[in-house]
Amino acid sequence: MTRFALTIEFDGGPFFGLQRQENGPSVQQSIEEAAHAVTGEQVTLHSAGRTDSGVHALAMRSHVDIAKQIEPFRLMEALNAHLRPDPVAVIACEVKPDDWHARFSCLGRSYEYRIRNRRAPLTLEKGRAWHVAKPLDAEAMHEAAQALVGQHDFTTFRSAHCQSASAVKTLDRLDVSREGDAVLIRAAARSFLHHQVRSMVGCLALVGQGTWRIEQVAEALEAQDRSALGLNAPPEGLYFVAARYPDEE
Amino acid sequence: MTRFALTIEFDGGPFFGLQRQENGPSVQQSIEEAAHAVTGEQVTLHSAGRTDSGVHALAMRSHVDIAKQIEPFRLMEALNAHLRPDPVAVIACEVKPDDWHARFSCLGRSYEYRIRNRRAPLTLEKGRAWHVAKPLDAEAMHEAAQALVGQHDFTTFRSAHCQSASAVKTLDRLDVSREGDAVLIRAAARSFLHHQVRSMVGCLALVGQGTWRIEQVAEALEAQDRSALGLNAPPEGLYFVAARYPDEE
Repeated sequence: MTRFALTIEFDGGPFFGLQRQENGPSVQQSIEEAAHAVTGEQVTLHSAGRTDSGVHALAMRSHVDIAKQIEPFRLMEALNAHLRPDPVAVIACEVKPDDWHARFSCLGRSYEYRIRNRRAPLTLEKGRAWHVAKPLDAEAMHEAAQALVGQHDFTTFRSAHCQSASAVKTLDRLDVSREGDAVLIRAAARSFLHHQVRSMVGCLALVGQGTWRIEQVAEALEAQDRSALGLNAPPEGLYFVAARYPDEE
Repeated sequence: MTRFALTIEFDGGPFFGLQRQENGPSVQQSIEEAAHAVTGEQVTLHSAGRTDSGVHALAMRSHVDIAKQIEPFRLMEALNAHLRPDPVAVIACEVKPDDWHARFSCLGRSYEYRIRNRRAPLTLEKGRAWHVAKPLDAEAMHEAAQALVGQHDFTTFRSAHCQSASAVKTLDRLDVSREGDAVLIRAAARSFLHHQVRSMVGCLALVGQGTWRIEQVAEALEAQDRSALGLNAPPEGLYFVAARYPDEE
């Protein structure tokens, strides 16, 4: 068996998420079926992150084990041929040692959340960003976000369906910046809880709109209570952008 | 009558172009119908540019004349409400003098053409960029492009359906740059011939792939012959990005 690391880009819109689901199409199913078509093997895809329905990826990192003798470039090309017309593409493929694991070897994950902040509805970015019509103060959002950086119990920002053993996580970065009528939130951590980024973004948006004071984000964190959550931002603005591995540093 | 200048963003994918067409939906029809719904008036939309089927706009400039007393902000909001679910949005609206004309007052138009240059098919940018799998040399493309800047007879780069009285145009700028696996072409001129940007981009892509020598772009221009055209780039990579007016300089 050869372990192939795959870098995957996908539009999360038509999927019920990255992981296999009972109730609808998933990115994992698309790739496993493509791999079966290429190799005749039952292949399992392992990935750095689990993304929800509607969440996108610019560079999800995953791996598969394949017995068939095939060059990485040929595997990438063949997978992409079989993935059509699903909006999933393998943008890089390389051989890794057997102990390299897309999920367990991963040292850090990065997400970007895109808000379009204007009155007019979205056209080209429909399904690609969260449309917030009320003006957002990105500087206030950035200031509020800094209370979340560091090691904390993120119970407030965790989905009821989160399977993580502990709600204590270390957030390395949570930066908010404005570029024209776009507000971008960049988050990095070794790992995230289920819904953590969307929950944090939702509360920051309340600060940006003036609905919450800057200090209320810190207060919500300290409450360690899901009911203290202000708002869960919608999935269509969220992008998995990068994963870090020790052999690539 | 009050003259309202509209700034319009649209996804050209589902339209047969900006201008009204006999054979299918147009951006103009969508906006004129929305304006009729708002005002009860038969309104005609005038625009700085004419874009083909599939071509997008980030900030098309247009105007309409309306008798109904309405504030620009209310007009924008009402048009956007009626434009749903079409992927067209009025992103700005202001009153202009009666002699301000979106087309005839316009001093300059800018377009951007987006190429995604990689093996893998497009997912999030499907319909939003031209997918070119063969590696492109953006520096060679930029060098070749400079032969087109200035005043020339652009007959080679003109559609058979072009209605312009003269093929002599002055191209102010044609810049090619690479950003990761994206190759961006930025073009500016007082006005363009029909298909001019797509025709220029198509030939530059031939240079980028090594199919054409750099000098062949200048040779094609000098030929003043449509049959010297190498390739017309597809519409989905083209964006109308800005129009200049004397009162806004």
